[in-house]
Amino acid sequence: MNTQWDRATGALDIATLKALFARGDLTPDDLIDAIYDRIAARGDDHVWIHLIDRETSKARARTLMADPAAKELPLYGIPFGIKDNVDLEGVPSTAAVRAWGRMPEASSPLVQTLIDAGGIPIGKQNQDQLGMGVVGVRTDYGIPHCVFDTRYISGGSTSGGGVSVGAGLVSFAVANDAAGSGRVPAALNNIVGYKPTPGLVPRAGLSMAGMVGTENFLTLTMEDSVLLSNLWFRYEPGDPFSKPEAEGFRVSCAPPPASFRFAIPDAASLDTDGDTESARLFRENVERLETLGGSAVEIDMTPYLTAAKMLYDGAFIAQRYANFADRFDGNEDALCPPTREILSWGRKYSARDVFKAQYVMAGYRQQIRQLFRDVELLVTPTTPSTYEIEELLADNIALNAKMGTYTNFVNLLDLPAASIPAGFRSDGIALGTMLIGPSLGDDLVCRVGAALHAAIGIAPGLAGKPEFAEAS
Amino acid sequence: MNTQWDRATGALDIATLKALFARGDLTPDDLIDAIYDRIAARGDDHVWIHLIDRETSKARARTLMADPAAKELPLYGIPFGIKDNVDLEGVPSTAAVRAWGRMPEASSPLVQTLIDAGGIPIGKQNQDQLGMGVVGVRTDYGIPHCVFDTRYISGGSTSGGGVSVGAGLVSFAVANDAAGSGRVPAALNNIVGYKPTPGLVPRAGLSMAGMVGTENFLTLTMEDSVLLSNLWFRYEPGDPFSKPEAEGFRVSCAPPPASFRFAIPDAASLDTDGDTESARLFRENVERLETLGGSAVEIDMTPYLTAAKMLYDGAFIAQRYANFADRFDGNEDALCPPTREILSWGRKYSARDVFKAQYVMAGYRQQIRQLFRDVELLVTPTTPSTYEIEELLADNIALNAKMGTYTNFVNLLDLPAASIPAGFRSDGIALGTMLIGPSLGDDLVCRVGAALHAAIGIAPGLAGKPEFAEAS
Repeated sequence: MNTQWDRATGALDIATLKALFARGDLTPDDLIDAIYDRIAARGDDHVWIHLIDRETSKARARTLMADPAAKELPLYGIPFGIKDNVDLEGVPSTAAVRAWGRMPEASSPLVQTLIDAGGIPIGKQNQDQLGMGVVGVRTDYGIPHCVFDTRYISGGSTSGGGVSVGAGLVSFAVANDAAGSGRVPAALNNIVGYKPTPGLVPRAGLSMAGMVGTENFLTLTMEDSVLLSNLWFRYEPGDPFSKPEAEGFRVSCAPPPASFRFAIPDAASLDTDGDTESARLFRENVERLETLGGSAVEIDMTPYLTAAKMLYDGAFIAQRYANFADRFDGNEDALCPPTREILSWGRKYSARDVFKAQYVMAGYRQQIRQLFRDVELLVTPTTPSTYEIEELLADNIALNAKMGTYTNFVNLLDLPAASIPAGFRSDGIALGTMLIGPSLGDDLVCRVGAALHAAIGIAPGLAGKPEFAEAS
Repeated sequence: MNTQWDRATGALDIATLKALFARGDLTPDDLIDAIYDRIAARGDDHVWIHLIDRETSKARARTLMADPAAKELPLYGIPFGIKDNVDLEGVPSTAAVRAWGRMPEASSPLVQTLIDAGGIPIGKQNQDQLGMGVVGVRTDYGIPHCVFDTRYISGGSTSGGGVSVGAGLVSFAVANDAAGSGRVPAALNNIVGYKPTPGLVPRAGLSMAGMVGTENFLTLTMEDSVLLSNLWFRYEPGDPFSKPEAEGFRVSCAPPPASFRFAIPDAASLDTDGDTESARLFRENVERLETLGGSAVEIDMTPYLTAAKMLYDGAFIAQRYANFADRFDGNEDALCPPTREILSWGRKYSARDVFKAQYVMAGYRQQIRQLFRDVELLVTPTTPSTYEIEELLADNIALNAKMGTYTNFVNLLDLPAASIPAGFRSDGIALGTMLIGPSLGDDLVCRVGAALHAAIGIAPGLAGKPEFAEAS
């Protein structure tokens, strides 16, 4: 069977590309050309902070093609983007703060692992500054927009990554997620954002990222997230927060168990900020989960929503400040106003405040541990709703906080989660559904995530757009 | 066999008392009488902050004796003391701060568990104020002294507990140990102080104790520590720092494995503060461990000694301050000068300082995790040496810090440990050897501890005193 792959719209998920390569219907060199044509066709979409030039990427592709052993590599010829706070040798890391850019000494271990596995880096991608924000508007490099509507935010902080995967510019994007930075742009661009339990992947080579969080991948399919994560789970004793359980840790897309229980917010704690379409999409995904064998249990989400608020609105913000204080103090103007303001909050808290806040947070951690004795998963909307860029700019801090309603608490409570597409509002805007598992319960998150994505039955990214589907 | 039990000097370990009760050679009522005679004979030794009156305790004993089912209780008729920061219904808790005394609403769950198991509480015992200190001189209730020499410190913070068990006034004492509060008085009074991995026992009903630490027991034998701990391991979801692994957790005194590896400080990092007798006692216990099948491996202790210093000399002190600030601020004079000074240090640290310190500490936690891939135990002196009360009073803060050299880091790194008697210096002063295990590796600590104590072959407490042995 000779499947024609469309250079302009052909899918980039890893399984599709591997099959095309294997059949000889596409070569990495052709693929790279197609990708650069797509990037050029989009014009200045503010996805890239630094784009590798086409010839360098093509040369990488040809080097792989010339090596017979390379065809066996798990990422042979697969193009990927890199969030700008993850180091790539030879390219500055800015974390979207132009004035703080610096040339890294080497690629981060993750990027090197991906290149060694045959992946081809296409460039460094836009983000909310320092990973602070889940909206995509807090950057020195222009504001990317959601792939479905230029008026709407892309989500962040991995804004360039989410758009590039959704728009079919790369197969996947290297992201990281503390407050929702991987999950929110996945939701808004109709792709998959799985974020492991903290400590399962190393943090070395992350430039200017906060302490709580994990590196992760934005992908078109859960199968790709699983493949990539399994390449990267690693116990790294040099990383203070790496977990010994990471050694040999694996996730899968095996079918979910025949029956499972999952918690959902009760009516009083389901926050969709008045977006009835968001509520509908969530309800539909809950119904799909029930069709897959799940039983929904309504719970009061208040404790976890309170925990989420503590990430920025309390002493935990000082963790971010602690990471950046050496550079920030005396150079506040290097940051855009909301980032600057939020980071400066970190100064007002005392040591006592931190211990009190951590004590409270440890209580929430116990509470959700109890919840996970009753249910296998907690399922929420990834975000209550979404906003136009202009709305966001007019009320930056408050609307960013609203966007993090469900995602902010997950890392604080040491949990894994994945954002899975929830389909489209009637105005064509995509939203996501988040599956949250117990600490180290990543495998079930991925298994149910894969099954749910399959049940939705819409193509990932731009290809899933209702109008596009009608036109095809 | 009818063994005569000496009312003045007879051993109080639980196995001995159980056997005497079973044979009818002693009744709980007689035992309580003997104990109150011993307490009276010691005069004002500053062990007790509140002594239950003899008739109340005798009435408890007789109630037990009148109930045929009570004889099967694990602590039938066993007398015990309670550190004054652990609540006993009807008696004020002061934590050795007279001005802060308050009447608890109920006995702490631990004390209630012990009473329900047939134990007889004899009284509330002296301690370093708020559990801050490992010396025993920081109290409003007089300074207890080591059972072997009235000039020497008892160790603390569980000062009354250590002395009462060492002097044969109770079978065991309820203690708690954050910086060494259970282990140090065990060492100086020739008894056993096993402290579980943090989170294996609940912390409810602890009045005015810091966040890092565990309740534990001071006992005459490791068998008693094991029996008591197995009664008390409990996962308590209402305690933010309780570990799920506590459910069903057990320790034992089974023989240690035929061979095991243990780390000891190398020459450069073995700190005995110039006490050559302490160095000798430590060497002798290392040799005993080798006879038991252990292989010693010298390591550089510097990272862990640095971690130990961080407990008081850095932002972690604010954890204590956070616990007491509501009472302390504006009432500083309620505390004795060293407690007051140390607690006030907690005010000078910022939220940023805490996150930085916790990041460093997490690195040490990883480092010792690596150590425990190479060895089963880490073995150190419990304290470098010991000091006279007058020396301590003259240089309170510095000598207290010296006493915590080895004990301070253990809870910060989430580890279990036990202080086992090391024998006597030539001047008749007792010291201890500490066995430290990996997180949740409590069982091996207890097993090796029991074997080591047996190998030393000296009676616990005052009964082991060389002169006493010669006289008998």
